[in-house]
Amino acid sequence: MFKKLASASESLKSLLERCGPVNRGETVHLSAARGRVLSEDVTSPANLPGFNRAAMDGYAVRAANTRGATPLAPIYLKVAEEAGEGRCVPVRTGMPAPPGSDAVLMLEDALLRGQEVEATAEVHPYRNLARVGEDVALGETIFREGHRLRPPDIALLASLGLTNVQVRERPKVAIIPTGGELVPLFSDQRLLPGQAREANGIMCEMYAEIWGGSPRKTPIFEDDAGIIKEAIAENLDADLILISGGTSIGEEDYAPSILAEMGELLVHGVRITPGKPTALGIIDGKPVICLPGYPVAALSALYIFARPLITMMAHRTDLPRIVTAKLEGKIVSRPGYLTFARVSLKDGVATPIMTSGAGILSSVARAEGYVLVPEEVEGREKGEMVEVNLIE
Amino acid sequence: MFKKLASASESLKSLLERCGPVNRGETVHLSAARGRVLSEDVTSPANLPGFNRAAMDGYAVRAANTRGATPLAPIYLKVAEEAGEGRCVPVRTGMPAPPGSDAVLMLEDALLRGQEVEATAEVHPYRNLARVGEDVALGETIFREGHRLRPPDIALLASLGLTNVQVRERPKVAIIPTGGELVPLFSDQRLLPGQAREANGIMCEMYAEIWGGSPRKTPIFEDDAGIIKEAIAENLDADLILISGGTSIGEEDYAPSILAEMGELLVHGVRITPGKPTALGIIDGKPVICLPGYPVAALSALYIFARPLITMMAHRTDLPRIVTAKLEGKIVSRPGYLTFARVSLKDGVATPIMTSGAGILSSVARAEGYVLVPEEVEGREKGEMVEVNLIE
Repeated sequence: MFKKLASASESLKSLLERCGPVNRGETVHLSAARGRVLSEDVTSPANLPGFNRAAMDGYAVRAANTRGATPLAPIYLKVAEEAGEGRCVPVRTGMPAPPGSDAVLMLEDALLRGQEVEATAEVHPYRNLARVGEDVALGETIFREGHRLRPPDIALLASLGLTNVQVRERPKVAIIPTGGELVPLFSDQRLLPGQAREANGIMCEMYAEIWGGSPRKTPIFEDDAGIIKEAIAENLDADLILISGGTSIGEEDYAPSILAEMGELLVHGVRITPGKPTALGIIDGKPVICLPGYPVAALSALYIFARPLITMMAHRTDLPRIVTAKLEGKIVSRPGYLTFARVSLKDGVATPIMTSGAGILSSVARAEGYVLVPEEVEGREKGEMVEVNLIE
Repeated sequence: MFKKLASASESLKSLLERCGPVNRGETVHLSAARGRVLSEDVTSPANLPGFNRAAMDGYAVRAANTRGATPLAPIYLKVAEEAGEGRCVPVRTGMPAPPGSDAVLMLEDALLRGQEVEATAEVHPYRNLARVGEDVALGETIFREGHRLRPPDIALLASLGLTNVQVRERPKVAIIPTGGELVPLFSDQRLLPGQAREANGIMCEMYAEIWGGSPRKTPIFEDDAGIIKEAIAENLDADLILISGGTSIGEEDYAPSILAEMGELLVHGVRITPGKPTALGIIDGKPVICLPGYPVAALSALYIFARPLITMMAHRTDLPRIVTAKLEGKIVSRPGYLTFARVSLKDGVATPIMTSGAGILSSVARAEGYVLVPEEVEGREKGEMVEVNLIE
């Protein structure tokens, strides 16, 4: 069984080679666009400001009419409805520049005496006055395709009068849990001996979302080749299919052979631990990852295969998650296998979490991250500096 | 005006000193609990596994009955319904251990001949067999108060049969936009001269959410002291109030004086640029931040004051966002002011974005982050290594 185990990096490469980023666009309302990536350039539908605008509290003037003003030789301007020779208009920041004005005299350079202003400084044209389109001009490209929208970006687009934007669709991730012994989560059903609650599906859903995908989960299917085939066929509109369970070598473990029947089985059995029974394939051009049923093995395969695939498909290059830490204890790895070693992390020190197997999700409860020990390395020594991948 | 400008760090300190983290608990469904922080320890309501379970495909045996088995001196066991002297039961991974069994003989140490198994190795008790409660024992503490729930944590809790968890409430952030010249976003209303769309509110909402708060936004209120007071009074059930606009010195800028009237004005006018008109206060024990209306000034004040406050209240210590980069150009700062200098970032190189003011949110469109230049420093030189705070 698993006679020809494949290496993790070659397996991942063979999968990524066959897949590409999702570039389909969709329209979303700006209020729901945070974190989404533009699928086309955005040009401004308006000038910002849309009118000449006072950029200071003070008096709007025609700059030429202040020429030569100094504290010793002030120029006197009457408060009026429009600016011009001998006239000025009081303005506050943000107000439209009154007719005739092309600059604003700051309050500290102006002394109001009754209905007359004593100007003690000259201003140049457009001083303290924002011109139409100065911030953003009508038709100007504000964001390029591929830009990821943050709150101030959304505020800018919305303040220009936009309501919707075109963004890249999130890759659709279909999640198919399999296993006759499984009971749905959150049901009142008591477990009989041999039964377990199906919890890998919700973990896959949440990670697909974190990594930029749009997940959907089917009901649990029995370990029956016909039923599972049908479930796959019905989900081939997705960009990626994750099948949970049914990957070990055994009479009821149909998933990998189904891949071979329905499309192409790229890999079954990978030199990663935990996660060895993982299978990868392509059906109708869509990548399919068969995850082991054991939860830590599923987590390991998710991080090693699904994460690079989903983030690539979703154009997510922005997820920072590696920190360097000093190992507080020895990591024992399985030579020849890429080892997914859980560690806790505190103040730059990583402590390996001793655990016996892939069934124990409680070992992950205490882990802040994992260290990947390469196939050719036999463990890591206490005191070594290691790269810890944070568990999101 | 702003005669006694306060320093940014002292202002922030005076605000943080008066506030504390939000520790109220609330019940949430596990499917909505990702990223939430536990408000109490969680103990297991069940054993996991709930029954002795085969951890390998093979034959369940009583370990004592395999003693001495070797390839040269095999022991023969009949396939039966229960394990014992001379008897074994075929099992697959995950199945309940059959009656009488306390270990599993791996397939590779067992040769099936008709109805008899030739055992070629001995096994110790509990070899390849997971005992009841081995992963998690009934009553065991799985997570401590303060733990932030990730997908595998939720999968673990759900697989133990839990449906809800007690988590810390997110701090409620009330956002009150003010300004008679403002028009709501996403309305069909065309702007008249002097009008602008109110976009700071949505920016505040989105940041409050990113930083761990639970935002709610009121309608836009006119610059009228009575109306704004009423709006504040109605929102004192929140943990924090953000008032947008109305902070400059001018006849219609009521916000800071309202703070003084209704409670305590801690600070009005801070040595940060942009963002100088920011005001901070406490009303009925609740922190109130009055943000300048200019969007970049608002962004600067949000990052300098609201972010530390909200993340503290929300117990969010997990937001990594500082990278070190080499400056590609000079940053000109305003001596005596903490300067919020926008930079673009590529391949470890930060390029200052030249911009003239706080009104231009398009300068943020091109910025991946900001460098804070301290009050006592006059800019930063090209070639210096700087800490860049990523704009989330």
